[in-house]
Amino acid sequence: MGRWQPDARSRLQLAALELYGEHGYDQTTVADIAERAGLTKRTFFRYFADKREVLFWGSELLEQQMVAAIEAAPAAAPALGLIGAALDAAGARFEEVGEYAGLRQRIIASTPELQERELIKAASLAAAMARALRARGIEDTAATLAARTGATVMGLAFEQWVSHPGQATFAQVARDALAQLRDLATAE
Amino acid sequence: MGRWQPDARSRLQLAALELYGEHGYDQTTVADIAERAGLTKRTFFRYFADKREVLFWGSELLEQQMVAAIEAAPAAAPALGLIGAALDAAGARFEEVGEYAGLRQRIIASTPELQERELIKAASLAAAMARALRARGIEDTAATLAARTGATVMGLAFEQWVSHPGQATFAQVARDALAQLRDLATAE
Repeated sequence: MGRWQPDARSRLQLAALELYGEHGYDQTTVADIAERAGLTKRTFFRYFADKREVLFWGSELLEQQMVAAIEAAPAAAPALGLIGAALDAAGARFEEVGEYAGLRQRIIASTPELQERELIKAASLAAAMARALRARGIEDTAATLAARTGATVMGLAFEQWVSHPGQATFAQVARDALAQLRDLATAE
Repeated sequence: MGRWQPDARSRLQLAALELYGEHGYDQTTVADIAERAGLTKRTFFRYFADKREVLFWGSELLEQQMVAAIEAAPAAAPALGLIGAALDAAGARFEEVGEYAGLRQRIIASTPELQERELIKAASLAAAMARALRARGIEDTAATLAARTGATVMGLAFEQWVSHPGQATFAQVARDALAQLRDLATAE
């Protein structure tokens, strides 16, 4: 066992994604995932609360990085400019997971329980961004509206990004979606 | 029993809202609701699948009326103008339920299971509006973005409307939120 091995968490995540894709989420057990990863169930539960959380691990970190980007943006930036900075930060993370993002998306889209979880995470992210916008001096309603709209743009951009792999970065797709929102808002 | 009585469905809805407000959603059973309404559990299940659905009854009709408003709007209306027409239609429904909307909102906000259901309903509504916008000739991405943004605006406007009862109609609050979105989108 002298050769390099990816860490246990990554091996479990990869094994879970493979098995969910091959046999379906409902048909896969924690024991299956641990076996595929060459680890024990006990090790699985050291990293994840249950088989659902394997798919959502890292979302708190993503939220923190997006909030940090809002905090670090130039002082004069308007609300949607701050959201754009947060989406750029998300893009940096998404490019790292790259090839697995589409598979994860398809698994979530096929399972109502996972879709609900994804919606809750998006609502949590929007609330965190709204708090960060308020802390930047943006008025309460404007902050909530910009943050929730930002989460909406993010979700749409993510779907487009994973459905056209290799064509553009997530940050580019997200910037295009924000520009399209501007066009929609100004159309008479 | 010669005097007028509200229909069984309304009595069950009112009883459920009262009990959820008084004792909490989790602590209330279908038997409690039926008893408060002066009806049987059997009658309850003739109208609702479970105690959760009492709170979401009517959402399909709301969706249909909002889609119908998009279909009926003037030919030259831009995407967010069509969304505005749908929000007006929602307003007409919300004014009818008026005083109970705030109570329902508080019950949902206090129970994660109900929040998840509300998010799913909002996603379903956004998908239905996006289909209606596409049928009006609006390009695919623009339709999805406008519909989801419309659902976001609707959620925010609803929260504001129920937290300031009697001050403005839902349609007015929603129009203000759409105008605020325009301001956000055009701010440099």
